[in-house]
Amino acid sequence: MRDATLPIDDRGLAYGDGLFETVLVRDGQPLLWDYHMARLELGIDRLALPRPDFDAFHALPAQCGPGLRVLKLMLTRGSGGRGYRPPEAPDLRWRWKDSPFEPSPGRWFEGVAVRCCELRLGIQPRLAGIKHLARLENVLARQEWQDDAIAEGLLCDSQGHLVEATAMNLVWRRAGRLETPLLDRCGVDGTLLSALDEIVDLDRVRVGLDTLLAADAAWLINSVQGVWPIRRLDDSAGNALKQWSLESNDTFRHAAHRQLGYPLNLGD
Amino acid sequence: MRDATLPIDDRGLAYGDGLFETVLVRDGQPLLWDYHMARLELGIDRLALPRPDFDAFHALPAQCGPGLRVLKLMLTRGSGGRGYRPPEAPDLRWRWKDSPFEPSPGRWFEGVAVRCCELRLGIQPRLAGIKHLARLENVLARQEWQDDAIAEGLLCDSQGHLVEATAMNLVWRRAGRLETPLLDRCGVDGTLLSALDEIVDLDRVRVGLDTLLAADAAWLINSVQGVWPIRRLDDSAGNALKQWSLESNDTFRHAAHRQLGYPLNLGD
Repeated sequence: MRDATLPIDDRGLAYGDGLFETVLVRDGQPLLWDYHMARLELGIDRLALPRPDFDAFHALPAQCGPGLRVLKLMLTRGSGGRGYRPPEAPDLRWRWKDSPFEPSPGRWFEGVAVRCCELRLGIQPRLAGIKHLARLENVLARQEWQDDAIAEGLLCDSQGHLVEATAMNLVWRRAGRLETPLLDRCGVDGTLLSALDEIVDLDRVRVGLDTLLAADAAWLINSVQGVWPIRRLDDSAGNALKQWSLESNDTFRHAAHRQLGYPLNLGD
Repeated sequence: MRDATLPIDDRGLAYGDGLFETVLVRDGQPLLWDYHMARLELGIDRLALPRPDFDAFHALPAQCGPGLRVLKLMLTRGSGGRGYRPPEAPDLRWRWKDSPFEPSPGRWFEGVAVRCCELRLGIQPRLAGIKHLARLENVLARQEWQDDAIAEGLLCDSQGHLVEATAMNLVWRRAGRLETPLLDRCGVDGTLLSALDEIVDLDRVRVGLDTLLAADAAWLINSVQGVWPIRRLDDSAGNALKQWSLESNDTFRHAAHRQLGYPLNLGD
């Protein structure tokens, strides 16, 4: 299955008819594995795919190279069907690869500058939360800026509610409470977010940008990069909307980094 | 370029980062070719892809087999980039294949039964009209029914406006005027629709299902299947919402079928 190609009639290519996961693996040991497999199962249910051979997936991390790697697993409905109509008994196709990964400690400890994207995510509850292959909105959003000083772009939905960043989830603290956008109508429910949901008190809210601007601290998180505290937020024209001071004892980042085996403090 | 495979790091597979066209070809002669290439160009602009070698595309229909064929052309941003971020100078990748095609004369002359889909299309003006590869909404909509007596499913957007069918455009006549949904916020702007727009008086409107139910006649159209008059419309539970009588002199179907070289009347 470590096949580097795929037939051109694959429905993943034709329609985005499939799912993927990118998993951090350290010396053959996957991080947050159960959360990745749970999200994959949710996606399988939503797309009404047959159940794949999860045992084969469980064997993949050990086949990754030594050190820090990212394992990418793709699962598609395979070939066939008539146009958009899936075949009655799809023959699932899956592919995987692993690549070396280097995190960005500067972003963990010095924070990042972030912008607001102009693109608004379409509202589609049937695809919300899962990591499907039809991610062209994310590509268009990521095309909005080229400046490497801007680490990420924040996305709102078509009704102006905060959702996520192009490849990370968004968390902030307001009046002593941790909050994150609801992901029931669009966006990806990140595995680090799901893991943190079980160990910290996190409110899922439907709010606009104003709420974020009233926050005491804000972070971007995902299961590969870890936690990037947001230092500055710009609008899409590059005007500063808000600056946050970095916190010397960032307990939220500490909790998240413990999940990934990443250092808590500079020099750890 | 008649390659039956594609590398798994292709961005078309990873994110739906590409475009496609399906073109009706009769004995090596493409139908509505200029409209297909115009829509491809629009998509290239919207996704900010580099300009491909259109001369190579123009040579494809003649390479299709004899008789009636469907030529499928796929164009992706190729491999590379960092996650969603496209590479600075993408190396476009394209693939094509042709398959024999048999139209459904019964549907032209006896009309079709159609249902309303439960899925609502997300509103995304940046992707509206073009034929991109991220079509998972269409797949989910087409999964809503298995009954072969139902030829198509109608789709509304998340605000309840009529948009299209899963793989066809929708046209109706009301008070003597031909109308079709606006496709500026979601849906695909079909090439047969574009061609007809230039030869018949067609109003593009933002309306709900009620407007369709008040129509005197309704049709589904695309550049491969031609025109299917709608005989019956059901809701998503299978209850009949409306029945239309077929028109003996269907001038709209005639105009469309002249574009495709399809027969105007049974027995032609």
